[in-house]
Amino acid sequence: MGIDPGLTRCGVGVVDGSIGRPLSFVSAGVVRSAADDDLPVRLLGIEQGIDTWLDDYEPDAVAVERVFAQHNVSTVMGTAQASAVAITCAARRGISVAMHTPSEVKAAITGSGRAEKSQVQHMVARVLSLSAAPKPADAADAVALSICHIWRGGAQERVARAQQEFARKLELARQARGR
Amino acid sequence: MGIDPGLTRCGVGVVDGSIGRPLSFVSAGVVRSAADDDLPVRLLGIEQGIDTWLDDYEPDAVAVERVFAQHNVSTVMGTAQASAVAITCAARRGISVAMHTPSEVKAAITGSGRAEKSQVQHMVARVLSLSAAPKPADAADAVALSICHIWRGGAQERVARAQQEFARKLELARQARGR
Repeated sequence: MGIDPGLTRCGVGVVDGSIGRPLSFVSAGVVRSAADDDLPVRLLGIEQGIDTWLDDYEPDAVAVERVFAQHNVSTVMGTAQASAVAITCAARRGISVAMHTPSEVKAAITGSGRAEKSQVQHMVARVLSLSAAPKPADAADAVALSICHIWRGGAQERVARAQQEFARKLELARQARGR
Repeated sequence: MGIDPGLTRCGVGVVDGSIGRPLSFVSAGVVRSAADDDLPVRLLGIEQGIDTWLDDYEPDAVAVERVFAQHNVSTVMGTAQASAVAITCAARRGISVAMHTPSEVKAAITGSGRAEKSQVQHMVARVLSLSAAPKPADAADAVALSICHIWRGGAQERVARAQQEFARKLELARQARGR
């Protein structure tokens, strides 16, 4: 499951498959929050929306777009906050969470880290044998993130090791807090 | 309860009282996460730490320092993410969450929005009849946030109205997501 975080719209995309095998499109959509609600209500709505997606699809891994402070300053705080909610939702279930930058996603999908959005969407449709990329754009971005994550995942052994390491740290963190 | 968010250290401070009456210090401390852990583990640890504080003190309201993108760019993303986790923890329990800027806190405590940290700490100790401000600095900042929130809270009626409005929106958000 890929998540393209945003306070107003979080893109979510689910792709099934593994490296070296054809990938198949499962689902894509958007978790929205209303701009005129207070921040706590918005974050809570995003949490509930992401939890519903995790309940429905039980992904093996979650990939979240890595947010940079250099981007548009007016929206970056909200994006960082939405990403924190999404990451915590997945981590709470013990699902491994990876982060990829927008240029890593573009490079994985099109071969160029500076590809146009339209080129990424074209390749997403092609890779998944769809007549067009999922809509809206945030959903397509999240699907691209899922594909990127599978293709960058490398050997299954490496993924399994990372998940074990993650589970170990999670357990240590829980023990440290006595819960 | 005041929360001064940070990825490495979240200050937490609890103050009891209401506007126009002497305030009393209840507790202060820090929720930490290890810099060498992955972000998901860190955010989950912060969530568990904040949840423990909320369990232990059951605050009527939570005040979180408002984060600005203008601050130190290298830490601001982590601060925004930690704040999102703290805000969501409180909102999930139906506790009203307010945000105050650092200069609002300084102005409330010392009369000047540009006061030095040492001046704020001096006044925190004085207002709470303590021999010194709580340590470390993040804990003292969180206590200052609590005091600021009580003093800026205004009439109890206004707070109650805001809480009702918050509960209503929360319920609407829940219904909209069918959960």
